[in-house]
Amino acid sequence: MALKAQVLYDFTAEPGNNELTVKEGETITVTNQNIGGGWIEAQNSRGEVGLVPEDYIEVSSTDAQCMVVISPQTFHIPHSILNEATETDASNGNDPWSVWNADPSGGSNNNWASNPEGTQTGKAAADPWGSVAQGHPQAYQGPGEDDEWDDEWDDMKSTGGYAESESGDGGAMQRGGAHATSMKISLNKFPGFSKSGPELYLLCKQLAKGKDKLPIYMGEVGPVWSYPETQLDCVVADPKKGSKMYGLKSYIEYQITPSTTNRPVNHRYKHFDWLYERLLDKFGSAIPIPSLPDKQVTGRFEEEFIKMRMERLQGWMTRMCRHPVVSSSEVFQLFLTYKDEKDWKMGKRKAEKDETVGVMIFSTIEPEAPDLDPVEVEQKCEQFSRFTKAMDDGVKEILTVGHEHWKRCTGPLPKEYQRIGKAFQNLSSVFNSSGYQGESTLTDAMTEAGKTYEEIGQMFAEQPKKDLHFLMETNNEYKGLLGCFPDTIGVHKAAIDKVKEADKLVATSKITPQDKVTMAKRVSTMSYTLQAEMNHFHSNRIYDYNRVMQLYLEEQVKFYETIAAKLRQAHGQFTTM
Amino acid sequence: MALKAQVLYDFTAEPGNNELTVKEGETITVTNQNIGGGWIEAQNSRGEVGLVPEDYIEVSSTDAQCMVVISPQTFHIPHSILNEATETDASNGNDPWSVWNADPSGGSNNNWASNPEGTQTGKAAADPWGSVAQGHPQAYQGPGEDDEWDDEWDDMKSTGGYAESESGDGGAMQRGGAHATSMKISLNKFPGFSKSGPELYLLCKQLAKGKDKLPIYMGEVGPVWSYPETQLDCVVADPKKGSKMYGLKSYIEYQITPSTTNRPVNHRYKHFDWLYERLLDKFGSAIPIPSLPDKQVTGRFEEEFIKMRMERLQGWMTRMCRHPVVSSSEVFQLFLTYKDEKDWKMGKRKAEKDETVGVMIFSTIEPEAPDLDPVEVEQKCEQFSRFTKAMDDGVKEILTVGHEHWKRCTGPLPKEYQRIGKAFQNLSSVFNSSGYQGESTLTDAMTEAGKTYEEIGQMFAEQPKKDLHFLMETNNEYKGLLGCFPDTIGVHKAAIDKVKEADKLVATSKITPQDKVTMAKRVSTMSYTLQAEMNHFHSNRIYDYNRVMQLYLEEQVKFYETIAAKLRQAHGQFTTM
Repeated sequence: MALKAQVLYDFTAEPGNNELTVKEGETITVTNQNIGGGWIEAQNSRGEVGLVPEDYIEVSSTDAQCMVVISPQTFHIPHSILNEATETDASNGNDPWSVWNADPSGGSNNNWASNPEGTQTGKAAADPWGSVAQGHPQAYQGPGEDDEWDDEWDDMKSTGGYAESESGDGGAMQRGGAHATSMKISLNKFPGFSKSGPELYLLCKQLAKGKDKLPIYMGEVGPVWSYPETQLDCVVADPKKGSKMYGLKSYIEYQITPSTTNRPVNHRYKHFDWLYERLLDKFGSAIPIPSLPDKQVTGRFEEEFIKMRMERLQGWMTRMCRHPVVSSSEVFQLFLTYKDEKDWKMGKRKAEKDETVGVMIFSTIEPEAPDLDPVEVEQKCEQFSRFTKAMDDGVKEILTVGHEHWKRCTGPLPKEYQRIGKAFQNLSSVFNSSGYQGESTLTDAMTEAGKTYEEIGQMFAEQPKKDLHFLMETNNEYKGLLGCFPDTIGVHKAAIDKVKEADKLVATSKITPQDKVTMAKRVSTMSYTLQAEMNHFHSNRIYDYNRVMQLYLEEQVKFYETIAAKLRQAHGQFTTM
Repeated sequence: MALKAQVLYDFTAEPGNNELTVKEGETITVTNQNIGGGWIEAQNSRGEVGLVPEDYIEVSSTDAQCMVVISPQTFHIPHSILNEATETDASNGNDPWSVWNADPSGGSNNNWASNPEGTQTGKAAADPWGSVAQGHPQAYQGPGEDDEWDDEWDDMKSTGGYAESESGDGGAMQRGGAHATSMKISLNKFPGFSKSGPELYLLCKQLAKGKDKLPIYMGEVGPVWSYPETQLDCVVADPKKGSKMYGLKSYIEYQITPSTTNRPVNHRYKHFDWLYERLLDKFGSAIPIPSLPDKQVTGRFEEEFIKMRMERLQGWMTRMCRHPVVSSSEVFQLFLTYKDEKDWKMGKRKAEKDETVGVMIFSTIEPEAPDLDPVEVEQKCEQFSRFTKAMDDGVKEILTVGHEHWKRCTGPLPKEYQRIGKAFQNLSSVFNSSGYQGESTLTDAMTEAGKTYEEIGQMFAEQPKKDLHFLMETNNEYKGLLGCFPDTIGVHKAAIDKVKEADKLVATSKITPQDKVTMAKRVSTMSYTLQAEMNHFHSNRIYDYNRVMQLYLEEQVKFYETIAAKLRQAHGQFTTM
């Protein structure tokens, strides 16, 4: 895997950030492509190793066929196609839904607060969605694999709080400026697609071997993945603070117990992040892999933060477990069932060397159904595109409205009910000073009524945690999931466009007639994949929304019933006259 | 009753307002002192009759003894006393509670909105307390008694709307500028007190005759009025638009049916206003006479306005009926039971000639208990002063909080619930477009849930009319009542101060030792009156607040129970999975 690259622009390393200074025209060797965040690790001619922005270089050679590469030369694919593909990518894949422009990370679970309508910080303490999403945490995964158990910058420092730890983290993210952020989408997320498009797969000479095959069956609802008999599940629990370097550095380790082995394994957030990057690389072209919950950005109570992160890691893991393709993948199984550190490290290295990533995932898929007509493929794609866009709008609307409701329930409403309560109690205490006989029959009841309204105020403030929270979390998760679809659909559209041009390409001898047949067959496979994935999405969506709406309404009923009961009791304190 | 007056300052009549232009130094004859609003009716030497501001003239002679007068000369009361009394009046009686400074009318039912905290117009349509109280309606009662059935300016004009009619009215009120407003308190409200203080009664030679005597008994709670066996009540109903002058002018006539005769009489607002002025003149020094509901200030729906005014006239009449002294008075009985127009006119003239007004009402009161020690008198007075001040603060707090709650319930809250409802419905309709099998089990339920939240929004908007309205009306009424106490208590304090000086006055031969004994006896009578009135107030207050709190809580219970029931139904639409 010796990968040479030409440096396109001068880049000066920032001290202390593991970066490598390079000059335009210099040739460097890429030593690690899986850094993420728009960075690669490279070695210069003097043997110095460090990080370089991916878009500052042009990779010039590779020894792998049908793997993720940046240079197209090895594949004998006409430049005419590649250039167009790049354009398609730029117009479709990069940011097809303009409403998401404000969100450079493309699908973070937590950045809906950047919606200008819903965002008002300052009262964020009680609102877990109020102050997140400044910068995207998993954009930067780490300087290399060798410091696996050493680097601490994605956890917390033992010096206390998160601010320090995060400012270091933020600094790392800022390297390369705006480039790094846009690169994350255009280069890093779908490395096989972004530079060269779906034709890598459409025209690939050699497909994956039989043992890795992923079948798609025709179910009642249409194409479906092959589901296991018992669904994998896992419990994320028991966060523990660990420390190293004689206590100088500390981190949180979570215990993850899969339902299959019932044997817990420990993982830190950075391991989840590593898993996320692997899944994104491997399945991202075909399966929306939602982002992990954001890292802590600014100081909050440690316990509250850890609880919230654990809850969201649980949600993320549950979603991954539910996916038949993801949950049965080797890398996911490794994460859940590694035996010891050695096992984990070996598995990690193997996963990082996996070549069936990017669009090549489609080469492993085998639909057990006749090939689809390209027109139908396109119709399905359009339909999914419309639906996911519309659902994204709907989900964002709920998040905005919910955010405002949260603010009202925890801010002005309790204050108002408390003021009503105080006003009743104050008047009651004035009445008590009248010296008039028999006053207490009124004043005792009025004081009770006042206290009841104070309690109701408190109830309003506490209610969102009991119901709105889950509605928000579910919609937040779906916002993250939906944020992955534009890229997935973009790969699909690019493939369709390529197939549409097949006749022209054959006529101008740019591809063979056999290539055209292969492309049509493969785009059909891609469509089955998309359909299977959409059906998986729909089935999960119906389950999730059914569950969360029921939970929400149940808690709301209890809430209003409790208020009514409290008021009825207060009413009973008054004597009929 | 020929009353001559010297004009102190030039005054130029405003055309069309029944005013009389007078010059400094001119002598005029006062033809009607009971105009109100700081105006008197006078005739100049050329026989022209019109209105002149009361504080532009100095009355120079009178032929009545122990009646309401402006000049003290006739009473042989030393100037030293009178001057001090005037000072006491200025410091105590005029505006003893600084919090009321913003309210020059001293006790309007409806001007709490001038509280800067609670006032935000613009959303006033749904809030009956939002846009009232610009100017004080009863400040100007009319140009004279002879146009009783003719003048229309306190009702509405048939040309439609209130704006025109009210601008004329407002113009009338503005005549004389700030003087007119302050005079309403200092001169008009307690004519017997303001110019000469409670010594009119304390040193009066001759008390009222036996048939008018008002006894005070010692009850369980202390001094109490003599209550009738069956309490008078009346129903104000059936507002009818009448018109005169061939339809050029229109007015609203209300039907008032007393429980005693069960025979309805008709009255216009201006008649209520006349009654109010009579009761204020006659009883105001001893009994708080709350202001009538304000006149309409700016345009509102005619029906809504009439309904609201009727409801408040009913409240005012009920309170007057409940008062044993007021309800049994000749003028109040006349109002409720006059037989025909002739009867009414004769009764009116008689009432206007009543000489037992102002502080002289105390001359009719006969406590059946031993005289009180002046120290105790003072303690009681202090206690009532503290209580009414504290209650006034408490009531205003409830009004402010209630006003804000009203705004929230009719403004942002329904909007928010409706947005939540819409968001659910929108997402549901997106789901419906998925084309996925079995979608409708979720979407039907979600749409229902959405509609439920829209309904809840509507419920929030409508609720204040059902409960908060009555809580506000009751507190509003009490604010008006409490606004009368500073004057009542002021009379009392001035009398106490006078008695305290008795020894000094005897020593300097300004009063006789017998005068001193008389004064102490009479201040004891005043204290019994105040105590009877406070006990009446307490008993009514306990009844009123008990009733309104029960009503409020009852409706609140129903409200939250209905919400819970609606949500429970919406919850039932979801299928358990």
